[in-house]
Amino acid sequence: MKVCRRATFNAAHRLNREDWSGEKNVDVFGKCSNPNYHGHNYVLEVWLEGQIDPETGYVIDLKIIKDLIKEEISERFDHRNLNLDCKEFENLNPTAENIALVSWRLLRARLDEKYKLTIKLWETENNVVECDGE
Amino acid sequence: MKVCRRATFNAAHRLNREDWSGEKNVDVFGKCSNPNYHGHNYVLEVWLEGQIDPETGYVIDLKIIKDLIKEEISERFDHRNLNLDCKEFENLNPTAENIALVSWRLLRARLDEKYKLTIKLWETENNVVECDGE
Amino acid sequence: MKVCRRATFNAAHRLNREDWSGEKNVDVFGKCSNPNYHGHNYVLEVWLEGQIDPETGYVIDLKIIKDLIKEEISERFDHRNLNLDCKEFENLNPTAENIALVSWRLLRARLDEKYKLTIKLWETENNVVECDGE
Amino acid sequence: MKVCRRATFNAAHRLNREDWSGEKNVDVFGKCSNPNYHGHNYVLEVWLEGQIDPETGYVIDLKIIKDLIKEEISERFDHRNLNLDCKEFENLNPTAENIALVSWRLLRARLDEKYKLTIKLWETENNVVECDGE
Amino acid sequence: MKVCRRATFNAAHRLNREDWSGEKNVDVFGKCSNPNYHGHNYVLEVWLEGQIDPETGYVIDLKIIKDLIKEEISERFDHRNLNLDCKEFENLNPTAENIALVSWRLLRARLDEKYKLTIKLWETENNVVECDGE
Amino acid sequence: MKVCRRATFNAAHRLNREDWSGEKNVDVFGKCSNPNYHGHNYVLEVWLEGQIDPETGYVIDLKIIKDLIKEEISERFDHRNLNLDCKEFENLNPTAENIALVSWRLLRARLDEKYKLTIKLWETENNVVECDGE
Repeated sequence: MKVCRRATFNAAHRLNREDWSGEKNVDVFGKCSNPNYHGHNYVLEVWLEGQIDPETGYVIDLKIIKDLIKEEISERFDHRNLNLDCKEFENLNPTAENIALVSWRLLRARLDEKYKLTIKLWETENNVVECDGE
Repeated sequence: MKVCRRATFNAAHRLNREDWSGEKNVDVFGKCSNPNYHGHNYVLEVWLEGQIDPETGYVIDLKIIKDLIKEEISERFDHRNLNLDCKEFENLNPTAENIALVSWRLLRARLDEKYKLTIKLWETENNVVECDGE
Repeated sequence: MKVCRRATFNAAHRLNREDWSGEKNVDVFGKCSNPNYHGHNYVLEVWLEGQIDPETGYVIDLKIIKDLIKEEISERFDHRNLNLDCKEFENLNPTAENIALVSWRLLRARLDEKYKLTIKLWETENNVVECDGE
Repeated sequence: MKVCRRATFNAAHRLNREDWSGEKNVDVFGKCSNPNYHGHNYVLEVWLEGQIDPETGYVIDLKIIKDLIKEEISERFDHRNLNLDCKEFENLNPTAENIALVSWRLLRARLDEKYKLTIKLWETENNVVECDGE
Repeated sequence: MKVCRRATFNAAHRLNREDWSGEKNVDVFGKCSNPNYHGHNYVLEVWLEGQIDPETGYVIDLKIIKDLIKEEISERFDHRNLNLDCKEFENLNPTAENIALVSWRLLRARLDEKYKLTIKLWETENNVVECDGE
Repeated sequence: MKVCRRATFNAAHRLNREDWSGEKNVDVFGKCSNPNYHGHNYVLEVWLEGQIDPETGYVIDLKIIKDLIKEEISERFDHRNLNLDCKEFENLNPTAENIALVSWRLLRARLDEKYKLTIKLWETENNVVECDGE
């Protein structure tokens, strides 16, 4: 049995490697490397797999996940510049893949290990990633 | 190959254990335990995994699933109070998890065992569960 | 210029007139009159028409509308039984039309009269109503 | 008869007045004034009202609107920082209202005056604005 | 007060004038004039404006509109080729505008004149039209 | 880690076997066998599973998938009649299952074998299929 809580956050980012030339960054990352950043409404789905607790009928109270997303994800990333404001991306390109991986690690550290955790992240309505571990 | 049919039903419910005090019910289930019920537009996805029949090009005619959902799910749960009207939840808390599990059992009993069955159920646009067995 | 804030609430209701026979209620309201209630995830859009304030670039700060919806609508209707818990529907059938009208009145009373107010309410993904006054 | 073309663009912005103190900006714009910007997936609907051309059955070929949106809106705002990269917002706060108004002006200047133009702009799934003139 | 019922139908069509050369058809209608047709999942919204009936709380029972859409629209257009199967488009190009206009006329003829009727029709997720009369 | 690119295409089709009688075709395929075709807005999700490239932070640049979908899927199927225009379905019923399988083969042939490929295809908002191999 899996349960999911969905949330959104809005952030600016750019894709860029300091150790590459501007030319190479444009070659690889195109307009995503524009120097002054652009942004997205990220949509996050947090999925937990586990057993139904026969007492409550819950795998987990989704309010716990809602609060955890607020604490670990929204307060960190919402209305932020991922490159400039978030130490998690100081040396890590904030691609959708890496944002999902970082989110997975942040939530994994806060969850009982009996739950299997999967993160799904929409960067746009056409681009999605899914991460279920490292 | 997997195929899916989506359907919706509208029902009232509350989360509550008769053998718990009102206080404990509020502690655990919050406003979901409000005594006079609340309700949801449930969205159900019924997924079947199987082989394509080379004669028809179908895994299964989705009209069969559509009719099965109507018979087993909609006629039972749609425009009902899950706690008061549905014997399936007489002694079972109608959490999204349990509604998905009950739906899985009801449909599993009507399907050829060659199909693997998975149920996905949205309780709200932010809360989802998925059940692929017991 | 119009601006809109969207919100959701989950409630139980039934359509029924006490002064009609059960038969007539079923004739007119069908399964919506089931005695033990059913429910919906209502989706509310609150639209305000006004001038852009040249100082802020806002017609109105949508956070004000977000808070107003919480105070006047969600705290009143969310996780409630509209028929039993809400005095607004003591003598008023909680059809989508009437819920929209009641919401319009509640919000109208709290808004500067310089704004034109329109309410859009989804009862299901297929049924919507819109109210811009009485 | 009205026709509409929908498109999306992704941009960074912040809400801020240079002539206000940082404190006042936070008071009025909250986290939307964060200094390093945040961003959105903007969804734009461009609506034209006019007569059906009896020869083609079109009010206007929507491919014309698609190309116009690309030229006037996407190439200007997509993957940009509205505050830093777009001269339209040099002295104008890039609120959803102002982005819609600027888009309206840009498209209005390119369209035959026989069409009535309305712009609908989603900043998030919960915040929308609509502009049909100045 | 306005009320709306939403429905879908799936149809094939092409845009083409018999009295034009193939070249001119391609010039004007592009790939929409491909000789062997293509198709769409059309999404229809039927909006009625009227007074709330104080007895029922309905502007109109939306089940009446649901049935009317089935009779007048779905049975006529669903799983059809609009050009070949539907006499309404024998001499009329089945553009979204014309499908909306034909639908408006079909439904208008069946509705009490006390209701104002508006039709909204999605041809794709990016192309929409709206018709509120001739 | 999985990444996904979403795209749409609009096509006509019918379900029918030449070697069956018209009666049998109607028995099995219902209105989907209507002789003059009908159509759909197909929504395609292309999912790739692989490792994050530590240099770019990408599993794969989704622009590559976007271009591949255009080349292999849209140019082949968009605004086409699957039965008449596409040699892939000359002897294969264009069910959603078979369209997904054909798309899987076309894309599989163009992708590095280090990626696991899954195709998800919506035929309507209620009918979906998923294919992850043969």
